[in-house]
Amino acid sequence: MKWGILGLGRIAAQFAQDLQLVDNAILHAVASRTEAKSKSFASAHDAEKYYDSYHDLLADQEVDIVYIATPHNAHMEWAIKAMEAGKHVLCEKPLAVNRQQVQSMIEASQANNVFMMEAFWTRFNPSVREIILRVKDGELGEVNFINADFSFPTNASPESRLFNLELAGGSLLDIGVYPLFLAYVLMGMPNEINASAVFHETGADEQMSAILKYDQGIAVTMSGFKSQSDMVARIYGSDGSILIDPHWHQTDGYTMIRNNKLSRHVLPPLGKGFTYEIMECHQCLSKGKIESELWSHKDSLNLIQITDKIRKKINLHYPFE
Amino acid sequence: MKWGILGLGRIAAQFAQDLQLVDNAILHAVASRTEAKSKSFASAHDAEKYYDSYHDLLADQEVDIVYIATPHNAHMEWAIKAMEAGKHVLCEKPLAVNRQQVQSMIEASQANNVFMMEAFWTRFNPSVREIILRVKDGELGEVNFINADFSFPTNASPESRLFNLELAGGSLLDIGVYPLFLAYVLMGMPNEINASAVFHETGADEQMSAILKYDQGIAVTMSGFKSQSDMVARIYGSDGSILIDPHWHQTDGYTMIRNNKLSRHVLPPLGKGFTYEIMECHQCLSKGKIESELWSHKDSLNLIQITDKIRKKINLHYPFE
Repeated sequence: MKWGILGLGRIAAQFAQDLQLVDNAILHAVASRTEAKSKSFASAHDAEKYYDSYHDLLADQEVDIVYIATPHNAHMEWAIKAMEAGKHVLCEKPLAVNRQQVQSMIEASQANNVFMMEAFWTRFNPSVREIILRVKDGELGEVNFINADFSFPTNASPESRLFNLELAGGSLLDIGVYPLFLAYVLMGMPNEINASAVFHETGADEQMSAILKYDQGIAVTMSGFKSQSDMVARIYGSDGSILIDPHWHQTDGYTMIRNNKLSRHVLPPLGKGFTYEIMECHQCLSKGKIESELWSHKDSLNLIQITDKIRKKINLHYPFE
Repeated sequence: MKWGILGLGRIAAQFAQDLQLVDNAILHAVASRTEAKSKSFASAHDAEKYYDSYHDLLADQEVDIVYIATPHNAHMEWAIKAMEAGKHVLCEKPLAVNRQQVQSMIEASQANNVFMMEAFWTRFNPSVREIILRVKDGELGEVNFINADFSFPTNASPESRLFNLELAGGSLLDIGVYPLFLAYVLMGMPNEINASAVFHETGADEQMSAILKYDQGIAVTMSGFKSQSDMVARIYGSDGSILIDPHWHQTDGYTMIRNNKLSRHVLPPLGKGFTYEIMECHQCLSKGKIESELWSHKDSLNLIQITDKIRKKINLHYPFE
């Protein structure tokens, strides 16, 4: 499977390292608008080709699947262009910035009959995958409380992708989606969402907390760029609880408590942990699927509807919308 | 100091045990509407007198201060009657069920020139007291995220004080006040509050989560009777963080992290931990004060305004209001 990468930031470098750990994954081409960056990235990660234009990479007939690692605001444009060029697509989370964009991307996947998946790597983390199965099998009984956050302090500049509203900056889309993802995969779509945010001078959400309300319980999430958080995710059910080790979104394991008995489960991920989403792409492609069953188009659409609702609650708009 | 106790439930028994650990604290009289209960309580806790009427206890000239441990809905009535009878009052939390009631109680304290304090024992817990001082001294820098909850599963009946709306049942007033207290003492009055609740068949809040928003950050609280929670309170600031050991509201100690260095602080409370609020009463009375500086009338008034706002958000009314 020949991979191309669009956008060569920090996450692309980690992804490229993990690509080398997966059977049959070949990094064929990389593209950045800065040729020097593209060239040095290609040399560092053994890519055969490098381009200073995203278009040129998409025109490369040898590329089977494109990993899109641009800032959030550019995901839709390049994912759709890639799919229209006949490429399969793995696109960084958030898949796009709003429901309408995600919908267009799903339509492009269907129209061009190509695979597309949001790179929600946490879904494929061995511990998280096992936890989802345990919860679905009812091992915790009815899940009625989740408390998960994702926060770290940063000195990033107002122009950086973290705070720049033109790039859909803010904690919600960048890291807030992790705890929201956890609530969604374990408790489903909430009946009601409440949210509050503290805003950066740029207008981006610097801290965001949401309460997702369900018939059977509550999930409380928080994301932020101001403070640390302990990065433990806590899942409580009528018959037991699970604490996912920090940093929970890329965890090495978890603790389960049932009938007052504690069990430890240690499952260190291969590489940085992007390996599993890469393997999922390969598996889906080998079966001719256009979406994953583990993180489907519908899942991405549901998650973006949650972030859309939160943005409505906290009155957060991106200037390009 | 001669104490009387009104309402002889579980917490009154724990309180009576702690009274024995405090110098100069004498349990003089106890009152329950059930004479057998009153008699056996007096015998178990060495009280000189027992009454089957609250009025009779208040008429006992030897009682200096009354500890009110009735269900929430009866706090105001008996606290005011006690103060009008010239008694000082320590009244279980919540001081009353709404702002108006708390205001009347404060006025009764002033009019009768008697001491009154909400029995917010966590305020006087040695660890919590030390943490408040550290935060006020700026040891954590600017506190910008607090995550605290208080939840346990219960099989209590719909008629019990936990779920009976006539008794102001629900998680908010019973245990939700603990995490709200922590946010209030460390971050002050919030600018904005958002809240969601899951309701019991009785209409009482079975789970409640609130987001308190400040200029400098966010506090996220949760209380509930459906699930367990890990009962760790987490306080994050720009220069460090503190995790209060479970069960944090009656903690034995805490962990502080500053400059990537972790320090453990172990301060086991004397007795169950009610001892400290008892000592505070004695100290205030010895100085002729009508309120504590550590947990003042204004503090109780502020806290009840927070719970009032939350009740408005979740549309929770008690039938007797």
